[in-house]
Amino acid sequence: MALIVQKFGGTSVADPEKIKSVARRVMENARAGNQMVVVLSAMAGETNRFVELAHQMQKQPDPREFDMLLSTGEQVTIALFAMAVKAAGMEAVSLLGDQVKIKTDSRHTKARIKEIDTSLIKKHHQDNKIVVVAGFQGVSEDNQITTLGRGGSDTTAVALAAALQADVCEIYTDVEGVYTTDPNVCNKARKIDKISYDEMLELASLGAKVLDIRSVSFAKRYNVPLHVRSTFTDTEGTWVIEEDKQMESLPVSGVTYNKNEARITISKVPDTPGTASKIFTPIADAGIVVDVIIQNTRSSDLTDMTFTVPLTDYDQAMEIVAKVADDIKAESYSGDKDIAKVSIVGVGMRNHSGIATTMFRVLAEEGINISMISTSEIKVSCVIEEKYTELAVRSLHDAFKLDKENPASPE
Amino acid sequence: MALIVQKFGGTSVADPEKIKSVARRVMENARAGNQMVVVLSAMAGETNRFVELAHQMQKQPDPREFDMLLSTGEQVTIALFAMAVKAAGMEAVSLLGDQVKIKTDSRHTKARIKEIDTSLIKKHHQDNKIVVVAGFQGVSEDNQITTLGRGGSDTTAVALAAALQADVCEIYTDVEGVYTTDPNVCNKARKIDKISYDEMLELASLGAKVLDIRSVSFAKRYNVPLHVRSTFTDTEGTWVIEEDKQMESLPVSGVTYNKNEARITISKVPDTPGTASKIFTPIADAGIVVDVIIQNTRSSDLTDMTFTVPLTDYDQAMEIVAKVADDIKAESYSGDKDIAKVSIVGVGMRNHSGIATTMFRVLAEEGINISMISTSEIKVSCVIEEKYTELAVRSLHDAFKLDKENPASPE
Repeated sequence: MALIVQKFGGTSVADPEKIKSVARRVMENARAGNQMVVVLSAMAGETNRFVELAHQMQKQPDPREFDMLLSTGEQVTIALFAMAVKAAGMEAVSLLGDQVKIKTDSRHTKARIKEIDTSLIKKHHQDNKIVVVAGFQGVSEDNQITTLGRGGSDTTAVALAAALQADVCEIYTDVEGVYTTDPNVCNKARKIDKISYDEMLELASLGAKVLDIRSVSFAKRYNVPLHVRSTFTDTEGTWVIEEDKQMESLPVSGVTYNKNEARITISKVPDTPGTASKIFTPIADAGIVVDVIIQNTRSSDLTDMTFTVPLTDYDQAMEIVAKVADDIKAESYSGDKDIAKVSIVGVGMRNHSGIATTMFRVLAEEGINISMISTSEIKVSCVIEEKYTELAVRSLHDAFKLDKENPASPE
Repeated sequence: MALIVQKFGGTSVADPEKIKSVARRVMENARAGNQMVVVLSAMAGETNRFVELAHQMQKQPDPREFDMLLSTGEQVTIALFAMAVKAAGMEAVSLLGDQVKIKTDSRHTKARIKEIDTSLIKKHHQDNKIVVVAGFQGVSEDNQITTLGRGGSDTTAVALAAALQADVCEIYTDVEGVYTTDPNVCNKARKIDKISYDEMLELASLGAKVLDIRSVSFAKRYNVPLHVRSTFTDTEGTWVIEEDKQMESLPVSGVTYNKNEARITISKVPDTPGTASKIFTPIADAGIVVDVIIQNTRSSDLTDMTFTVPLTDYDQAMEIVAKVADDIKAESYSGDKDIAKVSIVGVGMRNHSGIATTMFRVLAEEGINISMISTSEIKVSCVIEEKYTELAVRSLHDAFKLDKENPASPE
């Protein structure tokens, strides 16, 4: 007997038939003797409908009222799901965030989980009930409904799995698992069987959409085994777990890309202490998250500063830079929206030398110019012209033999 | 400065524009210096959508899960409403049944309010906020969401008004108020300016749909002045208040009808003690509410028993009667679905003699046969053939001069 947390996203519960089908899957697991906790998202499309309604009422919807509104989506799904289970003759109970007591801070629309009370879930498990929990929502100390932001249902599932010391947290999605790269870009993309928390964190932060980064970081912290798999098949998906020897034997686990960034360069800035702070403080104050920052020294007293920002924040960032450039006596500034960041990720990099060099060589062989480079212990990212994205991804996937189950080191 | 509770039904908040329009109305009252509590229903159509979804999951939806589902409708409306108020620059806060602490019993889908905690509402009023409460819902002692059944939002509004000792509870609807009879049947129907709780109770129980009977009975018990009025105009509607001299001067206040009943007759029953109990106990056990009961003695030892049941329960009641008839040695039994109950209501009946006689004479003059009669202190009901309903209503409305503001006694 195992304690299993299963999370199903909006496309898996998009209509009554799909909800019934998911319920059958969960009941099979329950009949096999497992204690089940099911975390559900809102039916696909519902959240968008609410967002639209809210914006018809208020340009910038009040965050507390927005949470009051959005949280109803999951409430509908869990009630329908519990009915489906009961119709099939098994016991189930739906629970809201505030009924479980998923306690969060008060930051509406992006709250963080502080504590989970597991007593009610355990009580229902003793009564042999399938426990159905509303994803994405919690309750603040002053009894307000909060929501956890993008990917919030993943976070709910992993946090519940951690609190309950579940044997596994299964994240059901519409793909078979985590891939070596985007199958839409590279048809040789292969499903990864096992990947470490750290690699998954890098992949998620670099643009892979299959798992929300917060839930991976939660899983890592509490050592919750994650199993990302398909709602529509029974095949094993990808296990996200602690690093092991086998993972280290691979220099690179995956290639990822992100087209949603833009580059800004401020040229010939007098290189005096405090310059970087003068540039990045107003940008941070505007709530813009800067990703890669590169500083090149041009001469003894002039420097160039280049950085990337999310595409959606580009216009606002350029306005800020326009003001700052004058202040710091920069000669000029420019921006480029047609860029992409291509990255390779793998814990094996720690033990394999020359991985970054191979990456640079492969891109050069394809005639792709690299405009920025940033590295961590387990990843290398290159900023290139956007139009070369797919070519770069495919070449790197080939070079590191990611289509093979156990590739040798790259030549 | 007054404390005003305003309730708006589903058609008044059917879409974003209507919600904004209602918000403007409420804000006007708030700007005039009043403390406002707004009770809202789900957007028109939403409840039906949920009922349909639920029935796709489970033939007889689990009541607890049904409440979990249905209660989201009001949650959506109150959040959108609060946003509309905030967009206009005033302060508002939406509250769920369990946040206010509208405590009910545990009878899911038809819970009764036991107690309301007013402290949170008072606190928000001190902060000059418009308080927006989800109608129709409460919370049971074991922290489950409950709903109050048909007309539940009216009940929420009146209960809140009673608990807060509000100056008035305004029930907004899509008609101008309570009418002397159904304007669709009789074009001389006139809006009533003032009506007593008792008369309104009779009218509601006899088929008038404008107010739910439970909310009227609540208002009477706690002496809450009700004002039934239109969402779409500023004209005064109908005040439902304690009886006064002026009301007593009218013999009849309104004419109402109900086509949703059926008649069942059991003939030539041996007239022995316990017969009525043998007939009505199994019917009550099946949850069928019997309305009018008439017993006619045929001879010294045989009697006829006639009664009415809701049309929807007719088939089930006939099945029960088929079994019982044999047991009590009745000679035969029969049923009739094509009946209607026409009633006149008025507290003035207590002081005016001959009101019932006038009703019988008016119906006779139109050639309408009366098959059953039942009376209370302030109403007379006659069961007639359904096809004569409209004719009966119009004739009675004329005879009692209900189209006149202050009619003289009928000739």
